[in-house]
Amino acid sequence: MKLAEIDTPALIIELDSFERNLGRLADAAAKGGVGLRPHAKTHKSAIIAHKQIALGALGACCQKVSEAEALVHAGVPDILVSNEVIGRGKLMRLAALARLARIGVCVDDPAAVAMIEEAAGALDTTLTVLVEIDVGANRCGVEAGAPALRLAEQVARAPHLRFDGLQAYQGAAQHLRSYAERRAAIARAAELAETSKRMIERAGIPCPRVSGAGTGTYRFEIESGVYTELQCGSYVFMDADYARNRGEDDRMQPEFEQSLFVLATVMSRPTEDRAILDAGLKAVSVDSGMPLVVDHPGVEFIRAADEHGRLQLARPTNTLRLGDKVRLVPGHCDPTVNLYDWYVCLRQGKIEALWPIDGRGAIQ
Amino acid sequence: MKLAEIDTPALIIELDSFERNLGRLADAAAKGGVGLRPHAKTHKSAIIAHKQIALGALGACCQKVSEAEALVHAGVPDILVSNEVIGRGKLMRLAALARLARIGVCVDDPAAVAMIEEAAGALDTTLTVLVEIDVGANRCGVEAGAPALRLAEQVARAPHLRFDGLQAYQGAAQHLRSYAERRAAIARAAELAETSKRMIERAGIPCPRVSGAGTGTYRFEIESGVYTELQCGSYVFMDADYARNRGEDDRMQPEFEQSLFVLATVMSRPTEDRAILDAGLKAVSVDSGMPLVVDHPGVEFIRAADEHGRLQLARPTNTLRLGDKVRLVPGHCDPTVNLYDWYVCLRQGKIEALWPIDGRGAIQ
Repeated sequence: MKLAEIDTPALIIELDSFERNLGRLADAAAKGGVGLRPHAKTHKSAIIAHKQIALGALGACCQKVSEAEALVHAGVPDILVSNEVIGRGKLMRLAALARLARIGVCVDDPAAVAMIEEAAGALDTTLTVLVEIDVGANRCGVEAGAPALRLAEQVARAPHLRFDGLQAYQGAAQHLRSYAERRAAIARAAELAETSKRMIERAGIPCPRVSGAGTGTYRFEIESGVYTELQCGSYVFMDADYARNRGEDDRMQPEFEQSLFVLATVMSRPTEDRAILDAGLKAVSVDSGMPLVVDHPGVEFIRAADEHGRLQLARPTNTLRLGDKVRLVPGHCDPTVNLYDWYVCLRQGKIEALWPIDGRGAIQ
Repeated sequence: MKLAEIDTPALIIELDSFERNLGRLADAAAKGGVGLRPHAKTHKSAIIAHKQIALGALGACCQKVSEAEALVHAGVPDILVSNEVIGRGKLMRLAALARLARIGVCVDDPAAVAMIEEAAGALDTTLTVLVEIDVGANRCGVEAGAPALRLAEQVARAPHLRFDGLQAYQGAAQHLRSYAERRAAIARAAELAETSKRMIERAGIPCPRVSGAGTGTYRFEIESGVYTELQCGSYVFMDADYARNRGEDDRMQPEFEQSLFVLATVMSRPTEDRAILDAGLKAVSVDSGMPLVVDHPGVEFIRAADEHGRLQLARPTNTLRLGDKVRLVPGHCDPTVNLYDWYVCLRQGKIEALWPIDGRGAIQ
């Protein structure tokens, strides 16, 4: 079965470029002497997590307990929930997972440490804990330095928790457009992580792990010498937003290839300059801008309604006809993937596999 | 089980206000002497469609064949796919549905009429067809007047199609903020529909049905005397975007009540003026603006990441604590519903039912 025969909207992986992306980051991490723990919040797929592990990854990151459950039940043996988990129900589920796989979780609040210890104790299991510090993203995380030390001490004292280091992800740096800005943001993040790590070690608590980094900045985390583990997710697929980041030469030349596409069909062709696709807000996320139209220069995706995408045609328009298939590059890969149940995997234009999106909708 | 015990993020229906919304539009349609065919693309739920039919609705609208399949298989007897359907695969599925329920579909292209006839003929069934005219939304639809007549003639000649009238939905008018603008847009739409209807009838083809209208404009479609059927969807739930529409007195006083909420938990409380929720882009759609925080004046949802929502706290901040539950009003209800598998239905703060979202992800 070929591309043209796939019903739409469909989520497509181009396997050749996808595999090159996987290999490229695995090589960079190995050469840089750091671990790689790719983020599964991007792909939500056990098959892809297993492929990453086969290329040397330590395991996977997840963002939610239910996402971790989907992967552990599909055999992924080592997961860091790179996020805070709050509430007895979720923590009991997390502790239960720790009997099936190596499970880590982040904390940024003393009250949370007590709750996690209680859940792990109730199931007589051990959870690995990273203290999350705010390294500039202004999201979660305790302040670096003394507050991080106090949390680390609390974790180290808890009988069912194993303090393992720091979560130091600078999410706000990933889409800073200039290379220099991204480098500066990660230099500051690394400094905060290093200060915290030293304070903790001076207090006699081993702090072997500093985890963080994303697709937009991972080179800087490697270069810092502080980070021990990369959490990049989007590199497997890329998206229009990441592709707008500029490199050291100030040009937009992404080092990873676009491997994820939404396939859509022209469902209406009402005027010379307008074509309507069968893919709108429920088929492609627009939070980071409209999708890009590939293969059709001069055609722009200008508006997404719930189930419709409006294309503006600048050039002679008879090239797009009713029923034609169009490939779109999503503005933002992660929330787009979360709209689908399956990947349709293509190699050289032919379907090679269908992969379930195990963690689709796993938001708890 | 009560609100505070529901794990998050969760999609909540407040049944009392939801039921009042259902009754209010059913009454308005009955008084106005027009049919009501509520749009199921909003709720994607057979249970809700059945409730609407029990209150007098003619059936349901769907936007996609797979959405119609989900409802027909759950017993909804009469569905209009208020949209164009392109491609032999989808059309064969649509024709198969017509053996189980009354099924209508829209066309705006001569090539599509031939394809629909072929599918209906292949299964020896009959499909009801509305000709969609562009009444100002600049999306799908043929031009009103002569082009609409030509399509109607083509449909009327097709042995397995039953021409039933016009699809004349003015989507672009729904969120025009002023009452006068919305009224003017629908006056123009009704004029285009009426002209087309007269031309078709003068050609000897009965044109009993003019279908359209949404939550933002339905009063004008009723008043026009041209529309015979309302397709409102969002009125069952409402959202922050619809609530910004202004009434005749230029005030924002929605006639329907907010009945849909996303329940989220405070998962991090890192600074005095910041709280982080466990609900981001995968839990609430932000295409029409950020969600609103209810019950907490002075608290603003300022940024959504994939799995995090950042709250800015303007007032003394100790009112929101780690683990607190917060109700959010989605910016846009339809794509938010599409992120969930279940509604949690509450009455007076207690869970009364869980309703499956049958059409979740049904985008083909």
